[in-house]
Amino acid sequence: MNGKGLLGQLIQNLCCLPGVGPKSAQRMAFHLLQRDRAGAQQLANTLLRAVDEIGYCQQCRTLTEDELCEICLQPARDQSILCVVESPADVWVVDQATVFKGIYFVLHGRLSPLDGIGPDELRIDLLQQQFAKGEIKEIILATNSTVEGEATAHFLAEVAKKHNIQASRIAHGVPMGGELEFIDSGTLSHAFNGRQQVL
Amino acid sequence: MNGKGLLGQLIQNLCCLPGVGPKSAQRMAFHLLQRDRAGAQQLANTLLRAVDEIGYCQQCRTLTEDELCEICLQPARDQSILCVVESPADVWVVDQATVFKGIYFVLHGRLSPLDGIGPDELRIDLLQQQFAKGEIKEIILATNSTVEGEATAHFLAEVAKKHNIQASRIAHGVPMGGELEFIDSGTLSHAFNGRQQVL
Repeated sequence: MNGKGLLGQLIQNLCCLPGVGPKSAQRMAFHLLQRDRAGAQQLANTLLRAVDEIGYCQQCRTLTEDELCEICLQPARDQSILCVVESPADVWVVDQATVFKGIYFVLHGRLSPLDGIGPDELRIDLLQQQFAKGEIKEIILATNSTVEGEATAHFLAEVAKKHNIQASRIAHGVPMGGELEFIDSGTLSHAFNGRQQVL
Repeated sequence: MNGKGLLGQLIQNLCCLPGVGPKSAQRMAFHLLQRDRAGAQQLANTLLRAVDEIGYCQQCRTLTEDELCEICLQPARDQSILCVVESPADVWVVDQATVFKGIYFVLHGRLSPLDGIGPDELRIDLLQQQFAKGEIKEIILATNSTVEGEATAHFLAEVAKKHNIQASRIAHGVPMGGELEFIDSGTLSHAFNGRQQVL
């Protein structure tokens, strides 16, 4: 069996999924064909629809099949506080994990001059349009804690300052349940610098 | 974000893949939509074609989109030795790992009277038709090493005996690189009973 047939092609195509190697792809293909053809068909149809219909929200730039995403359409959302994240996945994660009830803005990347990614590529102009409306009072900078993420956060804080908007950065420190012994020195030094009064 | 949109549906549908939970499905959906829409489209199309076209080989009952599978069509295959396995995935694994160059027969299960799976469900009649042709000299019983797998192997050995065909069972014992200390007692007792002379 040299894998040239349709089955081999299916296994190869399944490898385009992140975290799926040839062995898992093989298992998936056999599972779908032997036990869940209906599920496979539905997955394929949803995939085709998603690729075709899902684009970016015109306000916050997260992924959605409509003009505005679910979050931007919710009237109960606090329009005075905006959280800036790097990717649509971050919106999903933040919204599931926190009690944040404001709105979002997705950069789809981070400032990285060497890769040719500047403010224009991140559509900071759209963000500034929102700032100009005057409703936003605070932005929470939730870019990743990498060198580029920090630089992006710093840049956005300056932009916000020009519009008289308060900017805050999410806290960096020891993760919950983390033991000091196993924390890297950068995080630990951050945790000491960002210490807060207890009583 | 309550996941009711098309994106939520895609994440839910991706969970039908074995070994994929909500977290991985989320990661897959975002990866496909942001970085690999072409791959997603191709995967969807291949899935639809596979579900529609892939059936069972009329001779060995493995998965194939043609009437006879690649292996049954290869003229170089030794038609006198046949390996019986439980699933199409086993054919794939055996053919990649071993130097076996005979033909196969896929049972699509194992004898399990309590679940209503008897010789008819496993299409032993098809296997007997092949036996009756008189070309086969030996069958290798490569069913799983479970109680049902062993019972199935025993049953098939008796069927083969009636056709004067030699039946052999794959060896069970300590896996290569395995340390005795960590082997379960059943396997170890099998390994002692199945010991072979060295010199």
